[in-house]
Amino acid sequence: MPKITRVDARLFRIPLSEVLSDAKHGDHTHFELITATITLDDGSTGTGYTYTGGWGGHAIVAMIQHDLSPYLLGKDATNVEYLHDEMRWHIHYVGRGGLSAFAIAAVDVALWDIRGKALGQSLVDMAGGASDRCKAYCGGIDLNFPLPKLLSNIDGYLARGHNGIKIKVGREDLGEDIERVQEVRNHIGPDNAFMVDANYGLDVDTAIRGARGFEPANLTWFEEPIDPDDFEGYEKIAANSDIPLAAGENCHSVHDFELLSQTGALAFMQPDVGTCGGITTWLRAADVAERHGLSVCSHGMQELHVSLLAARPNSGWLEVHSFPIDQYTLQPLRVEDHMAVAPSSPGTGVTFDWDKLEAAHQSSS
Amino acid sequence: MPKITRVDARLFRIPLSEVLSDAKHGDHTHFELITATITLDDGSTGTGYTYTGGWGGHAIVAMIQHDLSPYLLGKDATNVEYLHDEMRWHIHYVGRGGLSAFAIAAVDVALWDIRGKALGQSLVDMAGGASDRCKAYCGGIDLNFPLPKLLSNIDGYLARGHNGIKIKVGREDLGEDIERVQEVRNHIGPDNAFMVDANYGLDVDTAIRGARGFEPANLTWFEEPIDPDDFEGYEKIAANSDIPLAAGENCHSVHDFELLSQTGALAFMQPDVGTCGGITTWLRAADVAERHGLSVCSHGMQELHVSLLAARPNSGWLEVHSFPIDQYTLQPLRVEDHMAVAPSSPGTGVTFDWDKLEAAHQSSS
Ligand SMILES: [Mg+2]
Ligand SMILES: [Mg+2]
Repeated sequence: MPKITRVDARLFRIPLSEVLSDAKHGDHTHFELITATITLDDGSTGTGYTYTGGWGGHAIVAMIQHDLSPYLLGKDATNVEYLHDEMRWHIHYVGRGGLSAFAIAAVDVALWDIRGKALGQSLVDMAGGASDRCKAYCGGIDLNFPLPKLLSNIDGYLARGHNGIKIKVGREDLGEDIERVQEVRNHIGPDNAFMVDANYGLDVDTAIRGARGFEPANLTWFEEPIDPDDFEGYEKIAANSDIPLAAGENCHSVHDFELLSQTGALAFMQPDVGTCGGITTWLRAADVAERHGLSVCSHGMQELHVSLLAARPNSGWLEVHSFPIDQYTLQPLRVEDHMAVAPSSPGTGVTFDWDKLEAAHQSSS
Repeated sequence: MPKITRVDARLFRIPLSEVLSDAKHGDHTHFELITATITLDDGSTGTGYTYTGGWGGHAIVAMIQHDLSPYLLGKDATNVEYLHDEMRWHIHYVGRGGLSAFAIAAVDVALWDIRGKALGQSLVDMAGGASDRCKAYCGGIDLNFPLPKLLSNIDGYLARGHNGIKIKVGREDLGEDIERVQEVRNHIGPDNAFMVDANYGLDVDTAIRGARGFEPANLTWFEEPIDPDDFEGYEKIAANSDIPLAAGENCHSVHDFELLSQTGALAFMQPDVGTCGGITTWLRAADVAERHGLSVCSHGMQELHVSLLAARPNSGWLEVHSFPIDQYTLQPLRVEDHMAVAPSSPGTGVTFDWDKLEAAHQSSS
């Protein structure tokens, strides 16, 4: 029964090589990586993490240090699911999703890393082991790229061996979105999968007009057209167009996934380990998706989600996100014949290059 | 157009004179007070705040300092509702309720304080001004008090001029809860209002048995019997007993209040300025309650909620909470003929005794 003796949270503010924009979050100049490293009394360690788009990192670190760590110290690290649920209740008053799901996520992933190393098992095996690989597409944060740059950026994705791509929509003028979507489809041909993502930048009526306008481009899905809390709106869009809808990155609890699934409007669910509360919640979200007949996909964190999607029998597409995390880990995502391949090493399979991260380290106050 | 030039967040960890317990949060030894003081370029200032039951305060301060303050600096302070909504979107990715609602609450209350002082208006007038007073009851955090202490504690509430009281339920043995409820009713007689609060410590079946067992005591309401996310459970309890149900302190957005109201199970809605996102959200929650035919009450923060409840035509009962905030403000709650009286001074009417708070001040890291 190894006991937890240390929890170290760190915040890194990592610059992007260029400004990336979407319809609701505006311009991204950095992303935040928040790591949690847990040490047991037998000397073993595990590291978990979460991301943000640039805000909230200090508060996440504060919650891990001041609220989760005091709860965890001295606890047996073996029963990850029990600790996960107890953490949720421990900070429930300031929790019920939101920021607490990010803080719990970092800790939960660290506990899964420890579990895998202790068992000598990879994450893909711990999560079900249905396969060792999954479909993958590249998601751009490219709303403001002029068309030539948009197309050459997509060429880069295809050159890296991918057969699926996603672009942002939600420009001031919906006509421009529809035109860009058609240009992209013409450019990539009929055989590559193609998705769009509005980051809830549209109202319901515009989303319906967009969904109809995008139809000739034969999209795999239309992601987060509207406010993720507007369930009636989702139902209205689904009832008034034929494009499959996708959402999930803004769900922070199993309850959130349940409510979204109950709308009946979705075809693809996209839980994100880093925003939903960790691997424990992600696996439960995948169960919810399965129960509602939805294909489970992912958002961000491809280096980790590759193992979870490969492990599940009902899995859909892995998003290969634009944040350059591969530059800061020791094991870049492997792609073979368009498929992303899960790492086979024990634990999460994600090892950070701490030396490289050092320049982006933020002090904790 | 006065511009915001400073946002100062502070955390105070205030000891309770004795350990207070409820069914889900366990023992409270302290509460946390988080203040946000905003300064404008014309030199005017306002102070807002929120509470927690002992966890999350450092993260709330971090969010105000690192995420909200950078957004607010340089902004015109006049349009409080606009700033409120923009703050929600600004941190939406790590938000959608939860901890972010506490951080936004502290800032939002500060902006209302500034607005009131600038207009020379009290909060009760700004919020509608239907009356200058409201019904009030005292809520104990007394789950583990032995019966004689429970009764003498209640005697203290009645001696202070109150005609309504609430006790905690959710002991290991439901029979004890039912017995304590009957003893309390016998003790206070038929004319005082009497509520119970389980802090979601029960499962649905136990809650139904409790609701039936409490019926002879003629309770005004049964508060948070179960997990606040279990909407179906609320409906089941309402369908299987006659006691009016109350909830709301765990709602962190207008969306949360809407979902809870749509269950049709509630009779009393209890938004809390400090947990829902501020005065702006509280007033919108009151609109939601009104639209669904619910009586709007409050949770905690009586020194502030007294003005909001007095101002609304459909208001119910003000909770006078057990956290001893009156010891740290310059204007203790006034009670006349059982009614709580709203302060008439411009702004929120809440002024902290900073000298007295100093001993409880926490450093920010
Ligand atoms: Mg997206
Ligand atoms: Mg309560």
